Amino acid sequence: MTELVVVMVIEDDEAVQGIVEDALSEGGFQAAVAATGEEAITLLRERHTEYRALVTDINLLGRLDGWEVARVAREIDPTFPIIYMTGAAADQYASKGVPSSILLNKPFAPAQLLTAVSQLLNAGSPPTAPTG
Amino acid sequence: MTELVVVMVIEDDEAVQGIVEDALSEGGFQAAVAATGEEAITLLRERHTEYRALVTDINLLGRLDGWEVARVAREIDPTFPIIYMTGAAADQYASKGVPSSILLNKPFAPAQLLTAVSQLLNAGSPPTAPTG
Amino acid sequence: MTELVVVMVIEDDEAVQGIVEDALSEGGFQAAVAATGEEAITLLRERHTEYRALVTDINLLGRLDGWEVARVAREIDPTFPIIYMTGAAADQYASKGVPSSILLNKPFAPAQLLTAVSQLLNAGSPPTAPTG
Amino acid sequence: MTELVVVMVIEDDEAVQGIVEDALSEGGFQAAVAATGEEAITLLRERHTEYRALVTDINLLGRLDGWEVARVAREIDPTFPIIYMTGAAADQYASKGVPSSILLNKPFAPAQLLTAVSQLLNAGSPPTAPTG
Amino acid sequence: MTELVVVMVIEDDEAVQGIVEDALSEGGFQAAVAATGEEAITLLRERHTEYRALVTDINLLGRLDGWEVARVAREIDPTFPIIYMTGAAADQYASKGVPSSILLNKPFAPAQLLTAVSQLLNAGSPPTAPTG
Amino acid sequence: MTELVVVMVIEDDEAVQGIVEDALSEGGFQAAVAATGEEAITLLRERHTEYRALVTDINLLGRLDGWEVARVAREIDPTFPIIYMTGAAADQYASKGVPSSILLNKPFAPAQLLTAVSQLLNAGSPPTAPTG
Repeated sequence: MTELVVVMVIEDDEAVQGIVEDALSEGGFQAAVAATGEEAITLLRERHTEYRALVTDINLLGRLDGWEVARVAREIDPTFPIIYMTGAAADQYASKGVPSSILLNKPFAPAQLLTAVSQLLNAGSPPTAPTG
Repeated sequence: MTELVVVMVIEDDEAVQGIVEDALSEGGFQAAVAATGEEAITLLRERHTEYRALVTDINLLGRLDGWEVARVAREIDPTFPIIYMTGAAADQYASKGVPSSILLNKPFAPAQLLTAVSQLLNAGSPPTAPTG
Repeated sequence: MTELVVVMVIEDDEAVQGIVEDALSEGGFQAAVAATGEEAITLLRERHTEYRALVTDINLLGRLDGWEVARVAREIDPTFPIIYMTGAAADQYASKGVPSSILLNKPFAPAQLLTAVSQLLNAGSPPTAPTG
Repeated sequence: MTELVVVMVIEDDEAVQGIVEDALSEGGFQAAVAATGEEAITLLRERHTEYRALVTDINLLGRLDGWEVARVAREIDPTFPIIYMTGAAADQYASKGVPSSILLNKPFAPAQLLTAVSQLLNAGSPPTAPTG
Repeated sequence: MTELVVVMVIEDDEAVQGIVEDALSEGGFQAAVAATGEEAITLLRERHTEYRALVTDINLLGRLDGWEVARVAREIDPTFPIIYMTGAAADQYASKGVPSSILLNKPFAPAQLLTAVSQLLNAGSPPTAPTG
Repeated sequence: MTELVVVMVIEDDEAVQGIVEDALSEGGFQAAVAATGEEAITLLRERHTEYRALVTDINLLGRLDGWEVARVAREIDPTFPIIYMTGAAADQYASKGVPSSILLNKPFAPAQLLTAVSQLLNAGSPPTAPTG
């Protein structure tokens, strides 16, 4: 258990980035921040680090938005946990989000982020419980 | 209760189309078949009929595939129940499917289709139960 | 397995009552129709028959409405499966419904009723699966 | 993200109130304590503050109990997250609780409260995922 | 879609076996009955047929009971859908059942069996939706 | 609320034991560590303390492994929340785990443990919400 549980974070607003990093750190996760979607995808493809989840803003620097990055992450690993953070774009979740993801409406509390990441990671137990 | 619960079906394989229509009919639903994704979207936009769910194949005649049609249907109505039917394209669900949808792997039994449509319609009760 | 699975139904609209009885019968359930909420509660209290679920309209003949009958049924048995059927009163579900119940919006297809009753009965397995 | 996520708390036992406030604060929520159910309802109706969830004891000072306050809160907003805290009244939850709420049995740990509030807030993503 | 969805059934009571076969058949499944747990395991291991789910009684002819057969089926395929049927042994489910299975209490209605099998098959969509 | 919420922990690796104790403590739980499965079962049977959940490693000192201890705990209390922690044995969960439990893959973050314990405790509200 000396290994770290690394969560990739894509967020260019420094204030939010700080809140997310602090929250993840307090929950015992290690945040790895990518400046753009392109950088995040490169890091996920290289597999130098084992990322366990993706926490992404929707409006990103660069050409890709958060919806697109999440789709690529799921092509690389179909079970990858995805958490979107957004204020203005929440109404696009129903058409642009991927299955089995969670949307956090800004503003959100750090506990919501920790619960969201943990729920998705814990649900990955083989096999996931059907409800009922 | 003399009104019908109409489910839009997009499927060009006549054998599967027959199975789906029969299954829906046996469960008390009314199937409305669209030949292409384009036709389905036109019908959803016109709102002459109140469609309550979409059951769609992935590989469709015309330019749109089932993933794209589902996204447009969710832009029109963010809570629209979506059921995908596929054999070959199941591995794309994690990246191309919309949240809160169900994928039926072909071959499937008619009871699976009825349960899938019913689960999504019943979950639409205001408000949907969070699990806990 | 010669015993019957009896579902109590409270519905005074004869057309809907017929649809509900037929649907339950086709699914292998036995419907026991009560004319009013008062009668239903008397039957539940007497325990001559083991009722396994309650399917109730909201607007009932007599002084009690469906919300009140469901609450009394849950006082008698805290795990009793409850399915509400309504058109006009759906917006009251969030404040007047009981936990772990299902609301069917009229019009609904028979398959939705069977799935709703079955989901609640199957979820009663000891213990119910937490999600995750 | 400088805005706060405010949670309304109705609890007159000062020891429990302190625990709840500390727990919420540690999770990054802002607790707004109301002394009675009547006061809570007045505050919810005025909408000066955007409350995001209600955490309520069952036995309250004043004429309303926690079950009644939750129902009024749901009339004001049908999707409002409700968390009940109780020791003695837990057996009334099945008949008096509202759908999609969570009951915390006293004594509970602060982490349970944070998870409960977060689960309900995160499930409010549009649309909530049906299980399947 | 001319292929069948085959469900393995282990049940030696002929009356129940008939009910289960009829129910599955009506839902469009093909039942393959095994007389004992040993026979069922042999068939699952040979993989001549692609079985998609297991429906099993608890008290079986032969040396294995339903709890043991389900565990072996899950060793062969960790995602195999399991439905137990029992009257007397329901209280053992919490300690002897496998995760993500469903217990049907006898007597049950055919619709409950169809919903149970369908829920587990539909939940197998890659990836299974975490709740939230 | 001066009473403690005690969670039984079975883990002989001192490093992991420390992480688990710290995580539980930070979430407001009280950890009670048992050195072996045999000791844990003795403590659960004596009922001197009210344990509210079990967090167990799979490979234990003594003759019992974590799968076996969990089964005995569920015989004592069919609703007892179970969280397994494992690295190597995760693939056995589908056949050896009990229903309604959660598996944490090592390495995991403290927040995952707190969320897992809290989800299972909160789901124990009477009655547990069926999904839909």
